[in-house]
Amino acid sequence: MNSPTLSLRHNHFLNGGATATSTIHIPRSTSTSRIRMSLQETGPSIAVVGVTGAVGQEFLSVLSDRNFPYRSLKLLASKRSAGKSMKFENLDYTIEELTEDSFEGVDIALFSAGGSISKKFGPIAVNEGTIVVDNSSAFRMDENVPLVIPEVNPEAMKHVKVGTGKGALIANPNCSTIICLMAVTPLHRRAKVKRMVVSTYQAASGAGAAAMEELVQQTREVLEGKEPTCNIFNQQYAFNLFSHNAPVQPNGYNEEEMKLVKETRKIWNDMDVKVTATCIRVPVMRAHAESVNLQFEKPLDEDTARDILRNAPGVVVVDDRASNRFPTPLEVSNKDDVAVGRVRRDVSQDGDYGLDIFVCGDQIRKGAALNAIQIAEMLL
Amino acid sequence: MNSPTLSLRHNHFLNGGATATSTIHIPRSTSTSRIRMSLQETGPSIAVVGVTGAVGQEFLSVLSDRNFPYRSLKLLASKRSAGKSMKFENLDYTIEELTEDSFEGVDIALFSAGGSISKKFGPIAVNEGTIVVDNSSAFRMDENVPLVIPEVNPEAMKHVKVGTGKGALIANPNCSTIICLMAVTPLHRRAKVKRMVVSTYQAASGAGAAAMEELVQQTREVLEGKEPTCNIFNQQYAFNLFSHNAPVQPNGYNEEEMKLVKETRKIWNDMDVKVTATCIRVPVMRAHAESVNLQFEKPLDEDTARDILRNAPGVVVVDDRASNRFPTPLEVSNKDDVAVGRVRRDVSQDGDYGLDIFVCGDQIRKGAALNAIQIAEMLL
Repeated sequence: MNSPTLSLRHNHFLNGGATATSTIHIPRSTSTSRIRMSLQETGPSIAVVGVTGAVGQEFLSVLSDRNFPYRSLKLLASKRSAGKSMKFENLDYTIEELTEDSFEGVDIALFSAGGSISKKFGPIAVNEGTIVVDNSSAFRMDENVPLVIPEVNPEAMKHVKVGTGKGALIANPNCSTIICLMAVTPLHRRAKVKRMVVSTYQAASGAGAAAMEELVQQTREVLEGKEPTCNIFNQQYAFNLFSHNAPVQPNGYNEEEMKLVKETRKIWNDMDVKVTATCIRVPVMRAHAESVNLQFEKPLDEDTARDILRNAPGVVVVDDRASNRFPTPLEVSNKDDVAVGRVRRDVSQDGDYGLDIFVCGDQIRKGAALNAIQIAEMLL
Repeated sequence: MNSPTLSLRHNHFLNGGATATSTIHIPRSTSTSRIRMSLQETGPSIAVVGVTGAVGQEFLSVLSDRNFPYRSLKLLASKRSAGKSMKFENLDYTIEELTEDSFEGVDIALFSAGGSISKKFGPIAVNEGTIVVDNSSAFRMDENVPLVIPEVNPEAMKHVKVGTGKGALIANPNCSTIICLMAVTPLHRRAKVKRMVVSTYQAASGAGAAAMEELVQQTREVLEGKEPTCNIFNQQYAFNLFSHNAPVQPNGYNEEEMKLVKETRKIWNDMDVKVTATCIRVPVMRAHAESVNLQFEKPLDEDTARDILRNAPGVVVVDDRASNRFPTPLEVSNKDDVAVGRVRRDVSQDGDYGLDIFVCGDQIRKGAALNAIQIAEMLL
């Protein structure tokens, strides 16, 4: 992999490389979905907005891994990072400051610099004829903006293509939603989900690279008997967990939870599906886990469910009851596929109308950068 | 607190002492429930079986904290630990090897040395006239053995008392069940729980002191870029999480999950209640968290639920939406009370027939040792 250096990738044990006990092979996406070209005149011009962040860095890794074609690449960030140089695919780039003039001639802009940047600069880019794939929550619930997981609802963006001269916004769903729906949608297509109860185990990476660094720093401090540094979160994260830091709404749900509720309805185009969620941050680096309880309209036994999941694109089944091996955040870290296991008939429901499953997916990759670049691939 | 030294207690940041950010006061149980005596001729003779383990050590702490009266104390462990000395309440004790003769003259024996020890020595003690409070799962589902959470179903053991000369077995429920039912039972009494979906976030302590030590060791190793030592669990625990290590049954549930299903029915004496659970180990030291979704037979709005919980014995409500402060494992560590928060109407259910809540409790204390000693207090 020809990726830029991200300080938090140096330790492969933190990031799910080969570990002493990592014996489950989780294959990458099949090669048929790859585009086997890279820097070339016929490709689109690309801009990455927020290139210094965890997701911005991963955009570059994924572009390279998937040989995404591009004729030019513009790296955009805040004034603070402008002027710094960054190597990508053996070429040196200078990071430019994001301004209103940044999008002239840009075909596709990958945004991951927070909601307020997207709100301000997304429409400016669209006016320049750029297609914006936005990783923030700014436009997700806008009824004119497709909210897309390519394996789930590619039809929502079928009218958007590069080369028409028309700009557009496409929203990347929230990481928890993507990871959940990657596993649940294939089951939903077969048996129709009536109600879904989700409890998440969310990694530091969802709060950005600084949160990952703080988790490492705090853990060192706690092990040394020192007071932990709490800059990103308002409480100790090392050897602890807490309710997701997103603001709590008047109904008592935090925004992260309501994203799961609302985005699921929009992505499935099903306003009747009932969803509740409890979102919790756990001291894990970069992959989310989710415990999902499902109630179906039609019967679906666990063997059939497992077969459906085995054949689902971007999903791998890790469900070895005898050796007690199931998906873990560590083993999906830096992997493309979402892993699902603990597939079992829910004993609290009659017949085959309920299942419990456990899902893990890399928050930065399929939860953000990979999904965005799969969207970009569909624009070509 | 006049407690024995447990190596894993030295670092108060790992164990939830006062931290820089710990601003929520969680009161201890009210003094009215305390017995204000200790070593005295009129108290029962006590034996602690498995005194060198995490729970065994906590038995001593709790006995001392609650001024539990005793006229003699016998510390029992395996041959390996026999002969070692241990200080308790300013007296030196010599640990004795657990044998068939250990229970002569013992009124109450607190067992926490694993199921096979309980199965072998529990009945021997009962034959000697000892009342055994057993922390293992050996007898929990035995229909002749009361399974008791003192705040929930004290009536189940009302026929058992010290001084009758008759031995008896009383089982301490599993930690996850105790912590869950401490919060859910007061709501169940008001509105009757029809169905409960539980996802747990379980600490290392449930697997014993060695697991807590391994989590610390692994975390150091990972931070140093070394391969993590995996002796207790078969995979990396530091900065990771995994499905509970209990054996998986043919129905796909692991034993930990089925304990929640079956023990809830027995404790509530309600064979109709529907429970499903997904049990996950997270890299936290000694307190469990549980995300609990509830479906009720009768309506129960969230304000009433919160009031009920505020008045529930052994429960503290931590539910500050404005400042995003809710229960955490760290803040309940070494505390008696179970903390509950995130109390909200379940948006996936119609009307006021559903609630989501988030519960945290010290696994070693209320999840094991404290509950057992509260049971012992009821024997007097």
